[in-house]
Amino acid sequence: MMTDVTTQQTAHQTTTESADGEQPATPVNVEQAVHAIADRARTASRIVARANRSHKDKALEAIGEALVANQGAILRANQKDLESGRAKGTSAALLDRLSLSEERIAGLAAALENLAGLPDPVGTIDRGQTLPNGVRLRQVHVPLGVVAAIYEARPNVTVDIAGLALKSGNAVILRGGSAAAHTNAALLGIIRDALDRTGLPADAVQTVDEFGREGANVLMKARGRVDVLIPRGGHDLIQTVVSNAAVPVIETGEGNVHIFLDESADEEMAVDILLNAKTQRPSVCNTVETLLVHKDAKAAAAVLEALSGAGVRIHADARIQGILPQGVSADTASEDDWAREYMDLDIAVAMVDTVDEALEHIRTWSTGHTEAIITNNLARSEEFIAGVDSAAVIVNASTRFTDGGELGLGAEVGISTQKMHARGPMGLRELTTTKWIIQGDGQIRR
Amino acid sequence: MMTDVTTQQTAHQTTTESADGEQPATPVNVEQAVHAIADRARTASRIVARANRSHKDKALEAIGEALVANQGAILRANQKDLESGRAKGTSAALLDRLSLSEERIAGLAAALENLAGLPDPVGTIDRGQTLPNGVRLRQVHVPLGVVAAIYEARPNVTVDIAGLALKSGNAVILRGGSAAAHTNAALLGIIRDALDRTGLPADAVQTVDEFGREGANVLMKARGRVDVLIPRGGHDLIQTVVSNAAVPVIETGEGNVHIFLDESADEEMAVDILLNAKTQRPSVCNTVETLLVHKDAKAAAAVLEALSGAGVRIHADARIQGILPQGVSADTASEDDWAREYMDLDIAVAMVDTVDEALEHIRTWSTGHTEAIITNNLARSEEFIAGVDSAAVIVNASTRFTDGGELGLGAEVGISTQKMHARGPMGLRELTTTKWIIQGDGQIRR
Repeated sequence: MMTDVTTQQTAHQTTTESADGEQPATPVNVEQAVHAIADRARTASRIVARANRSHKDKALEAIGEALVANQGAILRANQKDLESGRAKGTSAALLDRLSLSEERIAGLAAALENLAGLPDPVGTIDRGQTLPNGVRLRQVHVPLGVVAAIYEARPNVTVDIAGLALKSGNAVILRGGSAAAHTNAALLGIIRDALDRTGLPADAVQTVDEFGREGANVLMKARGRVDVLIPRGGHDLIQTVVSNAAVPVIETGEGNVHIFLDESADEEMAVDILLNAKTQRPSVCNTVETLLVHKDAKAAAAVLEALSGAGVRIHADARIQGILPQGVSADTASEDDWAREYMDLDIAVAMVDTVDEALEHIRTWSTGHTEAIITNNLARSEEFIAGVDSAAVIVNASTRFTDGGELGLGAEVGISTQKMHARGPMGLRELTTTKWIIQGDGQIRR
Repeated sequence: MMTDVTTQQTAHQTTTESADGEQPATPVNVEQAVHAIADRARTASRIVARANRSHKDKALEAIGEALVANQGAILRANQKDLESGRAKGTSAALLDRLSLSEERIAGLAAALENLAGLPDPVGTIDRGQTLPNGVRLRQVHVPLGVVAAIYEARPNVTVDIAGLALKSGNAVILRGGSAAAHTNAALLGIIRDALDRTGLPADAVQTVDEFGREGANVLMKARGRVDVLIPRGGHDLIQTVVSNAAVPVIETGEGNVHIFLDESADEEMAVDILLNAKTQRPSVCNTVETLLVHKDAKAAAAVLEALSGAGVRIHADARIQGILPQGVSADTASEDDWAREYMDLDIAVAMVDTVDEALEHIRTWSTGHTEAIITNNLARSEEFIAGVDSAAVIVNASTRFTDGGELGLGAEVGISTQKMHARGPMGLRELTTTKWIIQGDGQIRR
């Protein structure tokens, strides 16, 4: 397979410039160019779909090695992005997400190595049987085809999504944040080159970055050309994609996570779980954001004291204000606090009279990610499990367990907060669909 | 549960009429009214989701009995719809789909009885394990919540979808064709009454029929209120829904189905399969529409003769015209014929040189429903299976087997031609999502 890895660049230039080379790219040209990318991705997807596991794993390892071998070029490109970021006054947190280092590149290579070690979802059989008339049925997992991803200026996502898509037999079209444009272009070139060298089509990994926002818009509308679109990033990015996409979307990552502290909760367990769920990594989606305290919860004082002692800012409703232990202070919580994902050392705390009131609060404010109960009352735990309509419901453990790695799914594409296709941590299996294979020896329907 | 089955009607009237009772319903009022219906459906869905199987089955049987007991009222309502249909010059085929009879009502009751006999998808465990730290995981099937259906003037769909939604623990909002308005209203009243009598909320089955097209539009946009929307009907209906919906949609039913007649195909088998696939029930989606003939297919003449003898009109390309057996005539096929679902005693026939050419034709024209190969060549069958990207691929059997009943799924919601969530015949399981239940005894993440 002698795919020319420079084809993509050339094709874009031809398509986006008009005959006289003077006019800027018009939406029509962008649409044609993005559709052409998607059509090449479709062709490439047919080859990747039929590549066997060892071939795909060899490509993943080759990509990892090439990233390390070319880290000088990657870091130089990254430096350009960081410099323009600094010049534009980008926040330190965003610059940190944008920045790569030798250590981070080694981490990306290690993740690809890990991915190569995971079982191949393609070809696994979901169910099967032989019918009374002798017809043999099997429902087999097959790749989705063309996966698109729209994400923010985090270059690690470029490598991450490309690896996940390849392992699951898909082609991928990427649209990263423009602030990471140089870094992403460098990564793309290395990935495509490694694919080519291992005999897989370079067009299995492409980008529409050069078309900016317009390219992203075309991608979102490319029904029939894009099989699934995965937005990865904050609330605004996800909502923009969900509202504008005409292709199927998997919504990920928003987590307004609740813990209900029941009256019978063990004090030591409650303190351990709350500290872990709030302080271990407050910036991620499975961190707890609201604590609902049963009015008779014996562990309440110890939990509030422990949180406050760990530097967590408490935003409490009036009833919680009335039971604050000595030395613990709290802001007054408003509806804003029930809705907020702080993603920081902040927690909203409200008192409830019953588990039903806790469930009602959760129904009103939850994003459907994860909710937990700490209790020693069996009936109440059952009521909570049945009453919560979220991707994960947890009894007596940290909310931080809602994670593909922790749950043994291997690599994680994201955490789906929707109900269709995938719900909760998405592994490689969720990047596949199924196909019924029906084999007979002349059977007809009677 | 003493739900007042008249609530729905009253609430609509209040909402759709303005204070002075004179102005017609405005879009704003329709939006409020439909959202109110959806919110009542959400509340009802929580109760149905927790109803155990015997309770749901009792309700399904009660609905079936009530339909038979009230058949006089149903048939009178149906008569009104048929009369206005005739007055409007509705085609005989559409009038037939619209019309009910004592026999058809008995059939609806029997289908509900059959549904009651099927296993409950709710609560089945997809996967589960105990982690090294002792945390117990299980991924359990739970109802989607609120299911909406938009369909044509076929009153049987009203009963069918209501039954499927209830059995899988969901609430449902229906929008049937306005030509069946009287019949659907009669059916709805009987269904809601039977739910009420068996202690399930009547609001688990509601309609937005009275709001016409505007109601359907609001339903399609009700993100967060409607968990899945299923369009059931012809091409135009499905495309309208798919293009306009902001809620998740499951696309069903379009079948431009192909059979590839390989050179090694057994003549008798080929004749049997083609006759069955084309003539047994030509109006359904799993009937074959295009036959692709390998240039050296020995069975070609016998197949064309048999089809023609069975009254099938053949639309052939130039090369097939050249090999027509004596006494067999054919129209000249154009691109239109490759694209068409005749749903009648018509078949398009083209000659191809290779299996690759057949696959390319299928990729260009297929709707992704079902494709079949008739062959005795193992490598070619494998190539065909791997090369076809449709919900079902069939070797040496009739395309009519792509059917929930035939594949042993029990009841069928429809045949999904999309890749997300459900692909191919959709059974009750496809009306559920999953929830991770994570139980520990104080575990935190390290």
